[in-house]
Amino acid sequence: MVQGSNRDGWIRVVRPEITPPSLKDNTADVDRIIKALERELEGEAVIMDFSLIKEIPSFLERHGYEMSAVLYKGNRAWQVMDILPPEEDSPLYGLAMDLGSATIVVRLLDLNTRKRLDEISFLNPQMEIGPDILTRIHFANEEGGLEKCRSILVTGTNEKIAQMAARQGIDTGSIYGITVAGNTTMTHLLLGLDPYGLCREPYIPVINKPALIPAEKIGLDIHPAAPVLIFPNVGSYFGGDLIAGILATRMTGREDVSILVDVGTNAEVVLGNREWLMACAGAAGPALEGGVASMGMMAGPGVIERVVIDSRSDAFKIRTIGDEPPVGICGSGLIDLIARLFLAEMIDIRGRFVTKKCGRRLRSIDGMKHLVVVASRDSADGKDLTISQSDIDALLRSKAAMYTILTTITQMIHLSMKDIRHFYISGTFGSVIDPKSAITLGMLPDLPLETYRPMGNTSLAGAELVLLSEEAREEIYRIRDRVTYIELNVNQDFMNQFNAARFIPHTDRSLFPSVNERRSPKVK
Amino acid sequence: MVQGSNRDGWIRVVRPEITPPSLKDNTADVDRIIKALERELEGEAVIMDFSLIKEIPSFLERHGYEMSAVLYKGNRAWQVMDILPPEEDSPLYGLAMDLGSATIVVRLLDLNTRKRLDEISFLNPQMEIGPDILTRIHFANEEGGLEKCRSILVTGTNEKIAQMAARQGIDTGSIYGITVAGNTTMTHLLLGLDPYGLCREPYIPVINKPALIPAEKIGLDIHPAAPVLIFPNVGSYFGGDLIAGILATRMTGREDVSILVDVGTNAEVVLGNREWLMACAGAAGPALEGGVASMGMMAGPGVIERVVIDSRSDAFKIRTIGDEPPVGICGSGLIDLIARLFLAEMIDIRGRFVTKKCGRRLRSIDGMKHLVVVASRDSADGKDLTISQSDIDALLRSKAAMYTILTTITQMIHLSMKDIRHFYISGTFGSVIDPKSAITLGMLPDLPLETYRPMGNTSLAGAELVLLSEEAREEIYRIRDRVTYIELNVNQDFMNQFNAARFIPHTDRSLFPSVNERRSPKVK
Repeated sequence: MVQGSNRDGWIRVVRPEITPPSLKDNTADVDRIIKALERELEGEAVIMDFSLIKEIPSFLERHGYEMSAVLYKGNRAWQVMDILPPEEDSPLYGLAMDLGSATIVVRLLDLNTRKRLDEISFLNPQMEIGPDILTRIHFANEEGGLEKCRSILVTGTNEKIAQMAARQGIDTGSIYGITVAGNTTMTHLLLGLDPYGLCREPYIPVINKPALIPAEKIGLDIHPAAPVLIFPNVGSYFGGDLIAGILATRMTGREDVSILVDVGTNAEVVLGNREWLMACAGAAGPALEGGVASMGMMAGPGVIERVVIDSRSDAFKIRTIGDEPPVGICGSGLIDLIARLFLAEMIDIRGRFVTKKCGRRLRSIDGMKHLVVVASRDSADGKDLTISQSDIDALLRSKAAMYTILTTITQMIHLSMKDIRHFYISGTFGSVIDPKSAITLGMLPDLPLETYRPMGNTSLAGAELVLLSEEAREEIYRIRDRVTYIELNVNQDFMNQFNAARFIPHTDRSLFPSVNERRSPKVK
Repeated sequence: MVQGSNRDGWIRVVRPEITPPSLKDNTADVDRIIKALERELEGEAVIMDFSLIKEIPSFLERHGYEMSAVLYKGNRAWQVMDILPPEEDSPLYGLAMDLGSATIVVRLLDLNTRKRLDEISFLNPQMEIGPDILTRIHFANEEGGLEKCRSILVTGTNEKIAQMAARQGIDTGSIYGITVAGNTTMTHLLLGLDPYGLCREPYIPVINKPALIPAEKIGLDIHPAAPVLIFPNVGSYFGGDLIAGILATRMTGREDVSILVDVGTNAEVVLGNREWLMACAGAAGPALEGGVASMGMMAGPGVIERVVIDSRSDAFKIRTIGDEPPVGICGSGLIDLIARLFLAEMIDIRGRFVTKKCGRRLRSIDGMKHLVVVASRDSADGKDLTISQSDIDALLRSKAAMYTILTTITQMIHLSMKDIRHFYISGTFGSVIDPKSAITLGMLPDLPLETYRPMGNTSLAGAELVLLSEEAREEIYRIRDRVTYIELNVNQDFMNQFNAARFIPHTDRSLFPSVNERRSPKVK
């Protein structure tokens, strides 16, 4: 009997019906158990590792031929991880992990019920080596560096897993599988594989498609035989996190065209449907993440996420995360702010402050114009929160890069923006961005608002799908093999498009009819 | 390119042609190597263990993309054992092992050329625990006993392998595979599997068909990833050594009927052809091995292997192994001696000494008749070598058991002895026995002498075949699954046949026409 409700699960508890041996049937114990399991698993092959085989005689002596077997399906057969005394419900847990270079999120699931139990999010312990990936790759190249990178990551992750298991009152030895989606460098570092080739021509990973690896070989403190599924990568710049994202959108199951955008310092874009998948990435700069502006910061309590400007009084209405006193602004807040400034005509189509509209909010600091967004009396630390001309310029360069990347990949495959039916935006950024503001700025194309779908953490969502479903697990290898990665050619044409896109929303305003509607009435 | 001449080999060195990576082809290193190997292996799947994957970056840095890969074919894919710098001829050695409970023989082969290089034979180190298997099983049941049984066997075997490798000037790390044929108890003890179930009802092994196990998991000091192939068994009493024997005879490839007899304390008999295989075993007693007679011993220098009695003078002509002064007699020598005594009419059809024919050779020791075979002046230790009435009785009981077993299994499947076209006798016994004498005694059926084929060590021969050939390797599992094991029913009919067979050659002399011819002339 297969335990639990997860019919598509590739990690299972099975209670085989075993006829005890007799003089008439002297099949050996191990072969007998395997045969019984194969019957329960519709005749699919079952294999048992030698270390487990050695434990069988003493198990049978203690418990007889009633047992629960925990198995996972490998590429070619079901592998027995453990044999347990039979219980009504043997615990069967699994982890889905988003292995980000900055933040790691691990989700705990009950694989019998498919329910989420808990989630833990923590800074990647490798931040102590360096915040950016290149620093870590160079560190790994030093004597002992790779092992340090690997071990602090594994140790730190083990601590958090143990912490989460403890608060749920479960034994980490009952965690029988983990799926890990991360970029190519991060998965190499987790495996202790030399990442040096990833950052020098011709940018070659050590491995594209890791097989399932027992947890004990990686050092993860869950059941030692539990399979660790590392998402495959397409190359150095197209990691398993993006494949997880594609899976999470289910775009490869539909005929109409979807686009998935992962916004970061690098904007990663995947376009496709059930027939084809194109991907590219391009530098967008850190502005979209709020990393450049003087008041920019990552999302957190007190961070500004929405700005509304009263059309009569020009007063700013600020909404912060947790309704705390404002401390700064995140990427999506910045996009909202600049779009509102544009609609209020406080900046022009080049993004320049319009002095007479800004009025007393404008001041000069170190010879550069700044606009006061939150006055000192209202801010958390009693200082003005301001945005400078150069902050706006940086954001406009980034939004222009984003729009140009979108335009380029769409044109390369002879599609128009209008052909896109589903526009997925992943990441925290995707969850909080206001598509209307992004369209106003000309960062995202002027599609019907219902086309836009914030996806949250797609890397984690994909990892969870694969943890729960064999079909999803198979799909990620199909996705990997189907992705065509396009190298963006930064030529004159690209630069022309980029320059046109630096305006708000664009030099060609016919591309953004909805923005015209929103702003024009007041211009007249 | 696949190295060496062994096209049917499942352990191979392959030199893949690898196109180095470029910006146009950014396939990861491991995936690239695997793809190239799969091309060389006709598209069959290749897998690489995680521990080896970790070594790939530093290998490539030192040697580039030229390499030799050592692989073996597992059940579902080729497994890479090692990646080496390319050489004209990478060494590739293998071992075939006959794991006897008394004697172990290990043969060293060059797997590139299929040539035998060396062979080493040694006492099973477990003899120190006890000479017989039951003693060892009971010892293994004590605290720490199983591990002791396992480790002295593994340690002793490693020493001998190292010794043989050293005298051949080869590195044990270049030994990439070992096949082990042994009885079910011995293979369990080698694997450290509890043998207790083998000797109590319902006589259940822990495992029938062990998968390939890496040498390091068993503790054998050859290449750590080298596959150890343990021959499958049919049950507690039908081990891999017999399956190896069946393979060595190639009886399963022919239409006509063959019989394989392994003579020992237990007589093991397999009868079959390419359609069917029947097997049984029965207690024959230790007499056939020379283990009972006061002058009995295992074959060795000075041991009597042939006796001829001059028909006129009744003088004994003795031939010993190595032409050394006689020290004792082995099982086949004993058969020869008793057959000659019968032909010379020194014993009658019941095996009783005929006093007038024996003359001065006969003497009474402790109230029992003894015949002096070698007088004290001719023997190695200056003492008479004698055979007693009870020695003869024991041998006749054993030969009767053997003949009855042969009769019973043949009759059970409605065959006659005459249907047997090939009669294989395995073991040292098989190599030295004179079929004519065995027929004279009525131990073996009266078939044309060319039917009898001494096979020597069939366990070792089978292990060698499997080491060299994938086809042979597959065949042993087919043999295992096809064997029908018959439990001999020692009923009244069996006892009647046994009693008839205790005479020389048999109460029914029509069964042995050739013996009549040999003896009758003198009787008349």
